[in-house]
Amino acid sequence: MSQLVEEFDAYRSKMNEVILGKQNLVLNRLFNLDTNTYAEGALSVKTKELLGLVASMVLRCDDCIKYHLGKCHEQGVTTQELYEVFAVANIVGGTIVIPHTRRAAEYWEELINS
Amino acid sequence: MSQLVEEFDAYRSKMNEVILGKQNLVLNRLFNLDTNTYAEGALSVKTKELLGLVASMVLRCDDCIKYHLGKCHEQGVTTQELYEVFAVANIVGGTIVIPHTRRAAEYWEELINS
Amino acid sequence: MSQLVEEFDAYRSKMNEVILGKQNLVLNRLFNLDTNTYAEGALSVKTKELLGLVASMVLRCDDCIKYHLGKCHEQGVTTQELYEVFAVANIVGGTIVIPHTRRAAEYWEELINS
Amino acid sequence: MSQLVEEFDAYRSKMNEVILGKQNLVLNRLFNLDTNTYAEGALSVKTKELLGLVASMVLRCDDCIKYHLGKCHEQGVTTQELYEVFAVANIVGGTIVIPHTRRAAEYWEELINS
Amino acid sequence: MSQLVEEFDAYRSKMNEVILGKQNLVLNRLFNLDTNTYAEGALSVKTKELLGLVASMVLRCDDCIKYHLGKCHEQGVTTQELYEVFAVANIVGGTIVIPHTRRAAEYWEELINS
Amino acid sequence: MSQLVEEFDAYRSKMNEVILGKQNLVLNRLFNLDTNTYAEGALSVKTKELLGLVASMVLRCDDCIKYHLGKCHEQGVTTQELYEVFAVANIVGGTIVIPHTRRAAEYWEELINS
Repeated sequence: MSQLVEEFDAYRSKMNEVILGKQNLVLNRLFNLDTNTYAEGALSVKTKELLGLVASMVLRCDDCIKYHLGKCHEQGVTTQELYEVFAVANIVGGTIVIPHTRRAAEYWEELINS
Repeated sequence: MSQLVEEFDAYRSKMNEVILGKQNLVLNRLFNLDTNTYAEGALSVKTKELLGLVASMVLRCDDCIKYHLGKCHEQGVTTQELYEVFAVANIVGGTIVIPHTRRAAEYWEELINS
Repeated sequence: MSQLVEEFDAYRSKMNEVILGKQNLVLNRLFNLDTNTYAEGALSVKTKELLGLVASMVLRCDDCIKYHLGKCHEQGVTTQELYEVFAVANIVGGTIVIPHTRRAAEYWEELINS
Repeated sequence: MSQLVEEFDAYRSKMNEVILGKQNLVLNRLFNLDTNTYAEGALSVKTKELLGLVASMVLRCDDCIKYHLGKCHEQGVTTQELYEVFAVANIVGGTIVIPHTRRAAEYWEELINS
Repeated sequence: MSQLVEEFDAYRSKMNEVILGKQNLVLNRLFNLDTNTYAEGALSVKTKELLGLVASMVLRCDDCIKYHLGKCHEQGVTTQELYEVFAVANIVGGTIVIPHTRRAAEYWEELINS
Repeated sequence: MSQLVEEFDAYRSKMNEVILGKQNLVLNRLFNLDTNTYAEGALSVKTKELLGLVASMVLRCDDCIKYHLGKCHEQGVTTQELYEVFAVANIVGGTIVIPHTRRAAEYWEELINS
């Protein structure tokens, strides 16, 4: 696994443990609900991950983007499909999304080349 | 067609005409590019409209939501599928998206009952 | 009750019923979790409602603002306390919050004078 | 004066009076500082109003947009100049800005035709 | 003091000096007004810092979050209280706030363990 | 050239090449349109770059800010003029813009001192 991906996963796991360990009921349920949101339903897991990705891009959250890129990779999303999601995000969200698209493109290259 | 839908479409058309009539090259090309974004490609038109919808919801733009709801309706999106998009939008974007979800739900009822 | 307050409550109830009636598990749990968030805990209900209000103001969601104004009124928040919340929201969020502050001020006058 | 412009100005004045009347020091100073921001300086009033307008557009605040459109009109901004500001706002902020651009275009027509 | 906290404070002080040194009247007054906003009033300093924190979280500004975490720590906010603020921020602002909550949790551990 | 500026330019160029190389028609046209937006027109290049800067600041995108700071420097914008743009951005967008203003101020010092 690439260093970029590994570091992201490690920090995410470590801090989730800290947060969940505080036993705040609302936060712990929200984290749980978050997982349910992307489960197979009327829409496929793949479609839901694309939805999560485009939402993260227009809201410009790099870590959320990385998370959904990892999931999209697991779901077999192709580079061509991915860039169509990038296109929707950049058209709806504007050129302000471009710097996040650069970091997303970098992370995707790491995912597909490792 | 319902009054809500008709009024939305009429205002949208009237003002697009005013804007495009000013012949600002960048704006006119962007409007054109916007249409291309949702064309069939590696991803289907239906998937792209769902992407446009979720992006509009987390960015909380009622008019953009209405526009994509109309397109989703044309693409045969079911109510169950739609509410899974609503779920992603509300989980990613938070309860701040709820009031927009109310108006989206109202508009969707108009679309499917007319 | 003032007409402004009554209309807001009626629309909110009607559309929540439509949304919850679709039985989307994630949305229904999120609505439920939303209620738990503002329950008495280490922080008082009053403090939590002030937090919900300031968050709604900087995110500029008029309906969310109205909802929390109603709850703040129930919790006995004074006008002077309320305007200190308005001050935090306008300083952190900028003058872009002013138009929402105007509508919040109007709604508050309705609440305290009815 | 057009009805749209008149109603906007009247509501704005009425609610500013309510807010300033509560004598919250921070809010009152911020309102005052807001006025100073657009005063002649190293940049002209006209340039500053264009800056205020584009900022209001990408942050998608219709009332702020209307306010700065009024000021731009007073400063002799031409329709061609204005639409170049609209272009920057829509490119930077994305198509999510389009519905606000429609309402801005409508308001501008009122301003120049009254 | 932890390295994370120290570096944050040092950069903040250094750049504030650069900015204030340019003597832009509006910016310097805004910086001053910012300080007044969190002064004891009808609401306590502690409550105001919680308001500043939740506003910073939903607007997803890591540096603003760190600043208010430092102030909350000075005001004797407990970890349980803090996580209730985190809960409000994540429910209102959505899971897009989670990555910022991770960094906030990390910074808080530094504050309480140093 | 300063290291900060050089690194920013290098990463930007490298990743733009990756993105454009994927030949997504919408993205490539948007990148192209972005360039046209800031061309001389009814408004000067300098004014348009100031507009791009203030839009980037209120939307709080550090990389976009850096890009427009570079362009403003090329256009001969003075420090006094720049800080008036900073003032508009901080008043409209609120103190949440301050951390981005710190990084902008740092980058500007690099630009004018190299």
